[in-house]
Amino acid sequence: MSTVSILGAGAMGTALSVPVFDRGHDVRLWGTELDTEIVDTLRKGGPHPRLGTGIPSGIKLFTQEQLAQAMDGAEIVVIAVTSDAIEKIFRRALSYLKPASTLVFVTKGFSETAEGRIILLPELLKNLMSPEQRSSVPIVAVGGPSKANEVALRVPTAVTYACEDVAVARKIRDIFMTGTYRIEASSDIIGLEISAALKNTYSIALGMCEGLKNPHGYTFNNTKSALFNFAVREMALECQVAGGRGESALGLPGDGDLEVTCEAGRNRVLGELIGGGMGAKEAVDYMRSRDQAVEGYPAAHFAYRLVRQWEREGKIKPGALPFLDACYAILYEGAPALDTLAETLRKLTDPSRDA
Amino acid sequence: MSTVSILGAGAMGTALSVPVFDRGHDVRLWGTELDTEIVDTLRKGGPHPRLGTGIPSGIKLFTQEQLAQAMDGAEIVVIAVTSDAIEKIFRRALSYLKPASTLVFVTKGFSETAEGRIILLPELLKNLMSPEQRSSVPIVAVGGPSKANEVALRVPTAVTYACEDVAVARKIRDIFMTGTYRIEASSDIIGLEISAALKNTYSIALGMCEGLKNPHGYTFNNTKSALFNFAVREMALECQVAGGRGESALGLPGDGDLEVTCEAGRNRVLGELIGGGMGAKEAVDYMRSRDQAVEGYPAAHFAYRLVRQWEREGKIKPGALPFLDACYAILYEGAPALDTLAETLRKLTDPSRDA
Repeated sequence: MSTVSILGAGAMGTALSVPVFDRGHDVRLWGTELDTEIVDTLRKGGPHPRLGTGIPSGIKLFTQEQLAQAMDGAEIVVIAVTSDAIEKIFRRALSYLKPASTLVFVTKGFSETAEGRIILLPELLKNLMSPEQRSSVPIVAVGGPSKANEVALRVPTAVTYACEDVAVARKIRDIFMTGTYRIEASSDIIGLEISAALKNTYSIALGMCEGLKNPHGYTFNNTKSALFNFAVREMALECQVAGGRGESALGLPGDGDLEVTCEAGRNRVLGELIGGGMGAKEAVDYMRSRDQAVEGYPAAHFAYRLVRQWEREGKIKPGALPFLDACYAILYEGAPALDTLAETLRKLTDPSRDA
Repeated sequence: MSTVSILGAGAMGTALSVPVFDRGHDVRLWGTELDTEIVDTLRKGGPHPRLGTGIPSGIKLFTQEQLAQAMDGAEIVVIAVTSDAIEKIFRRALSYLKPASTLVFVTKGFSETAEGRIILLPELLKNLMSPEQRSSVPIVAVGGPSKANEVALRVPTAVTYACEDVAVARKIRDIFMTGTYRIEASSDIIGLEISAALKNTYSIALGMCEGLKNPHGYTFNNTKSALFNFAVREMALECQVAGGRGESALGLPGDGDLEVTCEAGRNRVLGELIGGGMGAKEAVDYMRSRDQAVEGYPAAHFAYRLVRQWEREGKIKPGALPFLDACYAILYEGAPALDTLAETLRKLTDPSRDA
């Protein structure tokens, strides 16, 4: 039995507590200051407001001021807070981190250094750790298609756990995996993080194809499916340029997660609004007014800057990622959805691309 | 300008006539004896009954007794008849086939030799051709996500054209491609055919995941997306075993076409019925009673026999394709959908699969 502390009682942190508890571990779920009501509700045996379901009563619950107790003796610390809170929470957690423990990292997105360099979140974590912690506490990143409510309901799910040292990813897999929460181990943490962050942006564009049905009176399934496949292939290239491997994009963190993200969730909804004729800015404002943050929207902006960074570093040529460029043009520069996506498909199938 | 004869005035043959005509070619669309009413309707300027849309008036129309005129001088012959009619129609067409013409092959599925050996349809065509034709008339196979009505409506579409001699695939691409009907050229005809045939079967299983929502009251998106990705990866292996390349499964003919097939169409509907609780046999009968042939159902049976053939030939070990085995078990042996799919996901993520 291992002691596992999960930081963040949002949908995903809470959902993950279920399979880990099912495996018989000592599970502590800690809520941030934004999660206090959630923890109170769960303590009373009520359903998690965003999951719509409760959790086993054996899971120990902690509120924000109880971080020390929540992390006391933890061999595995799962970080599942929102990306905007990650730095603040992680700084607090660092002082309680046991040597030779393992971090399991669920939060996804981009960050940047003080110098304005775009980095992936595991790099941010490493930068915040002491040299001793950096060498003794490995980071395992989690990617792949996993809607939180389904994980909590024990719906069959398969995800990827990646760590530079694949033996560590396998160790955590063997500790966490249940009959319905399935885990593949990988050594490609960069590819997993790139895929996890960018699939949200591509999903907005795929949602646009769904939205086009309304003004046109017929479906654009062909466009969506072709762009789906080109998104996967472009993500594979992005993984490689970032220093990871294309297989991650072709696996659960890319192809698999793109499938669920473009079918269900806010990225798709935003895309549908834009495809349906709403301006991108107006559509984003509309989502915000309903308190619906759309991960793929800021990710498109970060990605735009990251690609320019790659170009400056000579890692990639301008125009090598036409689909990502198109997402940015539609979302931030007012480019029209259908014309831009059709032009993207032309570029992606230009005979000059013949190998 | 080329002379292009399209054999088969069903949905796909008729749809393809639109981009080819848009490119300014002399397009002849020939209907089989089952298409006579369709040709009559199109001649009167009416909409194709299955496409719901008409075609440009410059496309020349021919009924079944006019095959000689329809093929007279054709440099490119597109074969778009149903798979059960392919042998009969192709035998008739062979005598009109001009030397040094090119066959473009849209029909998909499996066939078998008199000895009961499972073969792909291009092999059937070759077996029917004279030695002279075999050496002078190349076959270009078409795969990828293309719903016929969208092609006819000029919805942006991207597909793959594959020929053993990739220069021929590129030549046809350059002749057929328009601004909205986009073509990638490939040399992997086997991978394209394997992906095109098997994606229908996998789509039934993915449809089951959608159908599970009804009896359970919650979604199985995680299961569907994980299995989607494993289907792509299993198809890549199947392409290789069949003598083709895994990239075809990871491209438009596999990944891309699976996306559209599992979202829209009869394979998905059959899967939804089974996931919703109907027995497989009952669900197939129900679809048949409504005149809805489901391609993935017979394909699962052919695939089952093909895999046994591969096993006998030592090309693959038993159990190496657990997802395809699961499809057969559910569709033909009465295995329960959810339990079987959950068990499949366990097998596909078994730690013994570590590289």
